[in-house]
Amino acid sequence: MSMSKRLAAEFLGTFWLVLGGCGSAVLAANFGGDGNPLGIGLLGVSLAFGLTVLTGAYAFGHVSGGHFNPAVSIGLFAGGRFPAKDLLPYIVVQVLGGALAGFVLLQIASGSAGFSIDPAAAGAFASNGFDARSPGGYGMAAAFLCEVVMTAMFLVVIMGATHARAPAGFAPIAIGLALTLIHLISIPVTNTSVNPARSTGVALFAGSGALGQLWLFWVAPIIGGAVGGAVYRGLVASDRD
Amino acid sequence: MSMSKRLAAEFLGTFWLVLGGCGSAVLAANFGGDGNPLGIGLLGVSLAFGLTVLTGAYAFGHVSGGHFNPAVSIGLFAGGRFPAKDLLPYIVVQVLGGALAGFVLLQIASGSAGFSIDPAAAGAFASNGFDARSPGGYGMAAAFLCEVVMTAMFLVVIMGATHARAPAGFAPIAIGLALTLIHLISIPVTNTSVNPARSTGVALFAGSGALGQLWLFWVAPIIGGAVGGAVYRGLVASDRD
Amino acid sequence: MSMSKRLAAEFLGTFWLVLGGCGSAVLAANFGGDGNPLGIGLLGVSLAFGLTVLTGAYAFGHVSGGHFNPAVSIGLFAGGRFPAKDLLPYIVVQVLGGALAGFVLLQIASGSAGFSIDPAAAGAFASNGFDARSPGGYGMAAAFLCEVVMTAMFLVVIMGATHARAPAGFAPIAIGLALTLIHLISIPVTNTSVNPARSTGVALFAGSGALGQLWLFWVAPIIGGAVGGAVYRGLVASDRD
Amino acid sequence: MSMSKRLAAEFLGTFWLVLGGCGSAVLAANFGGDGNPLGIGLLGVSLAFGLTVLTGAYAFGHVSGGHFNPAVSIGLFAGGRFPAKDLLPYIVVQVLGGALAGFVLLQIASGSAGFSIDPAAAGAFASNGFDARSPGGYGMAAAFLCEVVMTAMFLVVIMGATHARAPAGFAPIAIGLALTLIHLISIPVTNTSVNPARSTGVALFAGSGALGQLWLFWVAPIIGGAVGGAVYRGLVASDRD
Repeated sequence: MSMSKRLAAEFLGTFWLVLGGCGSAVLAANFGGDGNPLGIGLLGVSLAFGLTVLTGAYAFGHVSGGHFNPAVSIGLFAGGRFPAKDLLPYIVVQVLGGALAGFVLLQIASGSAGFSIDPAAAGAFASNGFDARSPGGYGMAAAFLCEVVMTAMFLVVIMGATHARAPAGFAPIAIGLALTLIHLISIPVTNTSVNPARSTGVALFAGSGALGQLWLFWVAPIIGGAVGGAVYRGLVASDRD
Repeated sequence: MSMSKRLAAEFLGTFWLVLGGCGSAVLAANFGGDGNPLGIGLLGVSLAFGLTVLTGAYAFGHVSGGHFNPAVSIGLFAGGRFPAKDLLPYIVVQVLGGALAGFVLLQIASGSAGFSIDPAAAGAFASNGFDARSPGGYGMAAAFLCEVVMTAMFLVVIMGATHARAPAGFAPIAIGLALTLIHLISIPVTNTSVNPARSTGVALFAGSGALGQLWLFWVAPIIGGAVGGAVYRGLVASDRD
Repeated sequence: MSMSKRLAAEFLGTFWLVLGGCGSAVLAANFGGDGNPLGIGLLGVSLAFGLTVLTGAYAFGHVSGGHFNPAVSIGLFAGGRFPAKDLLPYIVVQVLGGALAGFVLLQIASGSAGFSIDPAAAGAFASNGFDARSPGGYGMAAAFLCEVVMTAMFLVVIMGATHARAPAGFAPIAIGLALTLIHLISIPVTNTSVNPARSTGVALFAGSGALGQLWLFWVAPIIGGAVGGAVYRGLVASDRD
Repeated sequence: MSMSKRLAAEFLGTFWLVLGGCGSAVLAANFGGDGNPLGIGLLGVSLAFGLTVLTGAYAFGHVSGGHFNPAVSIGLFAGGRFPAKDLLPYIVVQVLGGALAGFVLLQIASGSAGFSIDPAAAGAFASNGFDARSPGGYGMAAAFLCEVVMTAMFLVVIMGATHARAPAGFAPIAIGLALTLIHLISIPVTNTSVNPARSTGVALFAGSGALGQLWLFWVAPIIGGAVGGAVYRGLVASDRD
């Protein structure tokens, strides 16, 4: 495929990831107000994030590989599956797609009279955070560790499920549901990033608190992604296995 | 397949979509009354809508293509995958199947003494709406934007997951779960349509409020579907890729 | 496969369906008591029923076809896919497997001091019922209609997903998740049967109320199953399509 | 594959199973406190456990077979699918991987000021238990029976879904979702083990109560696994069928 089509696929896929995952969190997680079980809760948001990747990977995977995430692109580079020269364009369009999603989500969300963003609140506009901005009040060290470990295991699953010996065609299911699983574990800790483009896409609209903590959601997922890609290739299965 | 069998498949598939999706909303979403966590909530309804399409696409996809939705038929036409001459018969039987589902659902639902339809209530008999008829009180502009964007991305996923280069056999999973995802995001906004036949099937029985707003749930999904089909073909992958 | 192995598969598969589906309802649906959102609710029970069939069909489908349900065996006979001479042995072992599951479930459930069965209560020991024994208070006519329609569509999905033109290998996903969908819709109406062996397996231990209404959960699913099998073959796709 | 790579795969896979399953229980099940429907509840924990195996089996299955569980390794040995000489190394790394997961989870969880472990509490740090340490107050006999039956049926599903006649590539879906199903049924009884490595990995950090009951979660799953493997091979389908 031409690079322009690959970049269009990454742009649209990351747009879908951020619109769907963060959109479900902003619009539907707490529907009806505190204590109302009609809302989709953390379970519904976890499912939504995973389904953006599952559906996006079936729609765009055969075009661009279906990364939708700078930490995935870098992790696949570390795992020997993605060329260095494509990293920068991929990451740029991923961030742009995420930012457009944040913008569109803001237009929809502000169509309800009750909508507002409290920049100091944990998880404001689905942003990621730690300390007072962690949904469960987790400190920076726990947040960093959690993002590193979750992104590392995400890349391990991606490397394994797309290995030549893995069953063909099933990787989007494994990878999408791995992202659901990661959210089921870690939303209380950091509101779950494992994806700098997702964090940036909503932080741009969530206020200074989110922007001030955004660095962690670039550094930790990228470290985790690189570790995961390298660990799988080195310890579990190289491409020659 | 003969056109009569294809139309029977679209009729039954749309019947199943509306009976299952709207049926879960009417009968089970709020089971036990306000605040009772036994009910399936918006998460259960989202899953139900998606599973109607997942199961219907495996059952009927090899007969009719498994559209079950005028916006999908039109979007696939815009994407170069469906002939213009088949649009009208497909759409007619889709609407008829949805209307039969609304009728059957009404017979079942009215078997409980507590059942009634308040035509002014948001989401009455699972109808779609905006302003006072939006579950979360979203205005017309947000509702329109939301339906356009969601239907466009639905068609992008459909076009991509059924592309010749996508893994064979998995499209019903991707497409069904995309509809689940769309509901996880947007039930609070419009009660989620992205499907004029689904909106019509229950609006016929939901009272004048739903019928008065039905136009939006034809116009917005059709625009969105056409945009999504054209965008995928133009920017991501044509059928010759 | 030998008939003895096919019958062992149907026995174990129906045991698993009733133990898993009814077990989740009895042990986990209302965990923590009324109003406690930790319990899995109707959504969790719906998922459990579907997963018994999804997992059972992958485990046993290549041995016995994976019916686990007299209405399915009869519906497939009506659809021209199952020989009349095998109906009786299949149905006998299905009922026996369901009854063993009811017995084992009772041993586990009674290991908690708080366990008891109120024969008059709707859904007692996961039994099916109508009127005062319907979870949502639905009358006999609505219950009958609901069971007929749900079983008919269940068979339509089964016939379609196992048709020679459907993608190979995916049928257990479509069929299992169709059962999840059916429960998402109809637990409030009848506690959802669509399967006489499932109804019988727990009614044997649920008291006279459940046994007195058991007839409906044989008659309606069998009618529905036969209609569904015949409709698919006649209107949608015969085996020669 | 070399034994070192197979053992790395089992180590990482069991690490993922315990981190993901127990992590979701410790961090997210009861998010927001008692009665808050935002938490993922038993349904979310059930999904998380299943998805660790689904994703791990796609990532590691082609390397090590994807057991992640001593009862699975022993059950597959009983079913004639795994050599005796590999049992010990597999089980050792499974336990080590589970223990590392317990350690990492403790580091993350203790990053929140409100975190503590009450060794006497049912389900403390996601540990398994019976009597006063059973989430639903189930006694030892019911707990033992439940673990035996659930592990036996888990092995039956594993044996069936990986049989040569089963559809290729789908086994991780069937097996992972079987583990979800088992949790949907049995978390109230024992907090669900069916896996001695999972029980050990968190019992090491959960206090004396969990360690004192750990024997049951080795004995019962191993008996169940062996019975399940043998039953499938003997009654349903041997490898020559």
